[in-house]
Order: sequence, then C-alpha cells, then structure tokens
Amino acid sequence: MSDFPSYLAASIQINPEFGNKAANMAKIKARLEEVAAKGAVIAVLPELANTGYVFESREEAFSLAESAKDGEYVTMLKAIASEHQMYIASGITEREDDCLYNSAVLVGPKGLIGVYRKNHLWGDENVFFEPGNLGMPVFKTPIGRIGMVICFDGWFPELYRIAAMQGADIICNCTNWVPMANQPANMLAMANILAMGAAHSNALNIICADRCGTERGQPFLGQSIIVGPDGWLAAGPASSTDEQILTAKINIKKTRETRQWNAFNNIVRDRRDDVYDPMLGYLSPEDGCEMPLQRW
Amino acid sequence: MSDFPSYLAASIQINPEFGNKAANMAKIKARLEEVAAKGAVIAVLPELANTGYVFESREEAFSLAESAKDGEYVTMLKAIASEHQMYIASGITEREDDCLYNSAVLVGPKGLIGVYRKNHLWGDENVFFEPGNLGMPVFKTPIGRIGMVICFDGWFPELYRIAAMQGADIICNCTNWVPMANQPANMLAMANILAMGAAHSNALNIICADRCGTERGQPFLGQSIIVGPDGWLAAGPASSTDEQILTAKINIKKTRETRQWNAFNNIVRDRRDDVYDPMLGYLSPEDGCEMPLQRW
Repeated sequence: MSDFPSYLAASIQINPEFGNKAANMAKIKARLEEVAAKGAVIAVLPELANTGYVFESREEAFSLAESAKDGEYVTMLKAIASEHQMYIASGITEREDDCLYNSAVLVGPKGLIGVYRKNHLWGDENVFFEPGNLGMPVFKTPIGRIGMVICFDGWFPELYRIAAMQGADIICNCTNWVPMANQPANMLAMANILAMGAAHSNALNIICADRCGTERGQPFLGQSIIVGPDGWLAAGPASSTDEQILTAKINIKKTRETRQWNAFNNIVRDRRDDVYDPMLGYLSPEDGCEMPLQRW
Repeated sequence: MSDFPSYLAASIQINPEFGNKAANMAKIKARLEEVAAKGAVIAVLPELANTGYVFESREEAFSLAESAKDGEYVTMLKAIASEHQMYIASGITEREDDCLYNSAVLVGPKGLIGVYRKNHLWGDENVFFEPGNLGMPVFKTPIGRIGMVICFDGWFPELYRIAAMQGADIICNCTNWVPMANQPANMLAMANILAMGAAHSNALNIICADRCGTERGQPFLGQSIIVGPDGWLAAGPASSTDEQILTAKINIKKTRETRQWNAFNNIVRDRRDDVYDPMLGYLSPEDGCEMPLQRW
C-alpha cells in the first residue's frame, strides 16, 4: 500500500416501498451487487432505506425498527460487504432498547465499523425518533476517514466542519430530501448547493444518496449527487423521479492535498477558534456585540 | 413605525483604480448618489474599495491606509449617509496606529455605526494586514440588525452562524472575489454558491458587492449578488467584467419569520450546541471518535 490509488464510489438512489422490508432488502442487495460488479469500493444508500420514511404512528415505527448492530438489515449489509470487499453506508430505522433513532451504519469487509445517529431531526421525525447521541464520529478505514450525515444535518455546516477537523476524507449523506416550494427552475436544488459548499469549504468528498418517489403523499427530491473536494459535481444530479446509480472516482491523496490552497491558507486550519469559541469571549460589549449565546 | 416595510438594497460593483483614492472616492460618491436617487436605503461597496487591492509593499499599503473612524473616506461616506438618510457598508484599507486591517465600515444617517475587521486573511493579505480582532459584531439599527464579512470570510460558515445567533437580518459582504481555475461553465461561481447556502441555512439576506476588472495582473470575478433569506438570488449575478449596480427589496419582518420552518424546526435554534461544543465532550473515545481539536 504505497499510496491511495483512486477508487470508485457509488450513490444508489432508490424508491423504498414503505414497510416492505423484505422487498427493500432484496432491491438493495441487487443494487449493491450491481455496483460491486462495476468495481465500486464504497456505496451509499438513502435515509431509512430499509423501511421507508413516512411513519403514521409510533407503534408502526417501533414495529419496523431493528438493531443497527445485529438486525437483519445490517446483517445482510455485512455479508455483502464481506463478499465483495466493499464499504457500505446506509440509513436505517434503528431501535436500541426503547428508543428509536434515524441512523446510518457504516459496514466494511470485516463487519460493522460504526453507527451515526441523525443529530438534527426534521419535522415529524421529532415524533418518532430521539435526537442523535453519538456526536459526529469519523471512522478511520483502509480506504480513508469516513463520516456520515443524514438529510437535514446538511443544513448545519457545523457537522461537516467538525468532521473535517477530524480529518474526514468522505462524508456519506444518507438522505431523504424533499422538494422546496420556491425552487427556481434554472437552479440546482438547495440541498445540492449546500453539499457543494460544504465539500468545497472543507475540501472533502460528499456522496449524497437520496431517495425518489412519493410515499403516503410525500414527494421526495431525487437528484442525488457525488461532490468532489473542490466542491464541484463529480456525478449527478440524478433523476428527480427515477431510481438511478451514480459513480465517480475518489482520490484520497488528492483530497488531502486540496486543503492547502496556497502558502498561507489551509481551509480547515484557518479557522479562527478565538473568534468562534464563546468560551474565549470573542464578543465583548465594548465591540458593540451581544453575548454569543443569546438566542433570537 | 408599525412594522418593517420593505426597502431597497443596492450592491455597487465597481473597478477601483489602484492607489488613486481621489478617483475612487469620486466614483463611489457618484454611485451612492445614483442608488440614493433610486431610493436605496442600504448600499454595499467592495473590499478595499477606496484604495484597490494588490499592494506590492508594506510601505505602499501603509501610505494608502487611513482611519476607519475619521479618515477622509469614512468622512465622505458619513456625509453621504447623512444627506440621503441611508446606510452604507464599504471595505476600507484601515490603519490604526502601526497596524493595518482589511476592514469594513458601516455608516448611517447619524455617523459611524461600527467597524468589522476581516477575520480570515487570504494569500498575500497575510503580508500586509493583521487578522481581525473585533470578533463578529452585529449592529442594531433602525433598518434591522446588520453584520459584515469580507471575501474569504465567506468560506467559513462559522461567521454567518455567529451573526445569525445574534439575530442578524442582513450581512454585507464587501468582497474582492477572484476567479477559480476549475469553474465549470454552466455553474454559478462557488463564491455565489457559498453565499446562497449561508443565506438559506441562516435565513438572512446577504448583499455581496464584488469588484471587477484586472489590477496588476490579478483578475477579479465580478458576479455580485443579492441573496434573499430563502437562499435564492434576489438580484444578479452581475457582469463578470463591467461595473454594475444591483438592487433588490428586503423585508425584515419576512426575514425573521423565515427562520421558523415548521412546528418543530427553526434553522438557528435547532443547532446542537451539545454536539458542536468541544468543551462539552461531544466526541468520546468510546464512540470511536478522536478528540475534537486534533488538527490534520
């Protein structure tokens, strides 16, 4: 292992069938085998990919959730990752004891690498899930340092930055983006714009796997993308309606070199902790500023 | 004053002439009078608008810099703001004692409201300027709460967020963006994408006034924009080569209402301080995480 050769990454955009876990697992297995055949080393699947998204009751959500460590879905993913020597990130409806989480698992050839739990719950997710309690972990793997975020998390650049500060090379965004009413026709979706800005201003790759289709009246955006560490699209946007697979090459050495922009500027190290950190008194009344944690 | 009626904002894209402060001031005065005649209540000018950008020596920079409190440039801006009852944000090459700062001033009908000093210096700016030492102030005015950032600051979403946490309605981005070598032809500039993401994910208006032209061999991007609190363009992008004025209506009441996205989600209040704050131990080794401030 003399260097980090480029390898293929895949974003798998699917339309899960609500509540039909067997059908979803069969579809996901087929898609993972398809990208493995293309040579993908890492593949990303949408948010709550094993169950669908629009729960109507807590009973329903509890009945569909499973363990992120040894439930049937993660067990299947581990078997596929082992057979094809690949890494897979997927959203999962997770149950641990009496709590539900909107989670993402990362599995590799040797099994479960880590779990991320969505830190920023959107809308009615607040009825079903507990907010994430595992922070923003970045997992060190032979193919690079990998973090995960889920959908609305992408509206909080804090998470991407905290991942970058831990040296993240790749963020897997397992997402169920929904369309925005005021989307101009000639623009990329705002979800894409946010991911591009985050990839650029942290110099890391973001693999966004969105779902498509309409579920219980809720339409989803599709338009999955793979973003390079320069912030530009390496693949996509995918269809706004249909299932689709995107692939793009990722190079970890180039990713890490991308952070140093000139002799003076490194996009992560240039952070002004002294300005940002409320513990350091960056906002003094003498400067005409309010206290930092005052909320509006 | 029963409400916040909409008012007109202007972004003034100019090509300053290096070192010719008299000519730059005359041009800026004419442009400000032009937007005042259109009814603009707030106008924004580029970074270092009074002097130009590409200094070749510290002696040159010191000789052109002036006080942000009572130098000739801010004195002129104060007179215009008073005469036309308007608010003006402009970049200025600031000297205080033996230190130079890449600064922005905010003046209003009653005089100087505040000074911001660029926190994130780009490239050779590190040779001439001291990094900002005034934090990220947000100034309360009769037309709303106003903050300023300068160019490369826009690559650090931390600043926009800290402003939003203080209730900022408008961020004036006084900038000298430069073109990126790998800009795809069919895309908005990354500087625009970053501002749109920041406006959207903080629900505030961002008035970006860029410069245009080539100075001492350095081309500038132009493409000034005004972004609404939904993140979409309210005006622009302006020309990539020529001087241009953009105007757009801003409504502060609607801006503040924009932050609440549904019964559960407020884009600023949904921050997970417990996850972000390194003082609270959000990353524990048990979770497979590194310590938060480890740098790479």
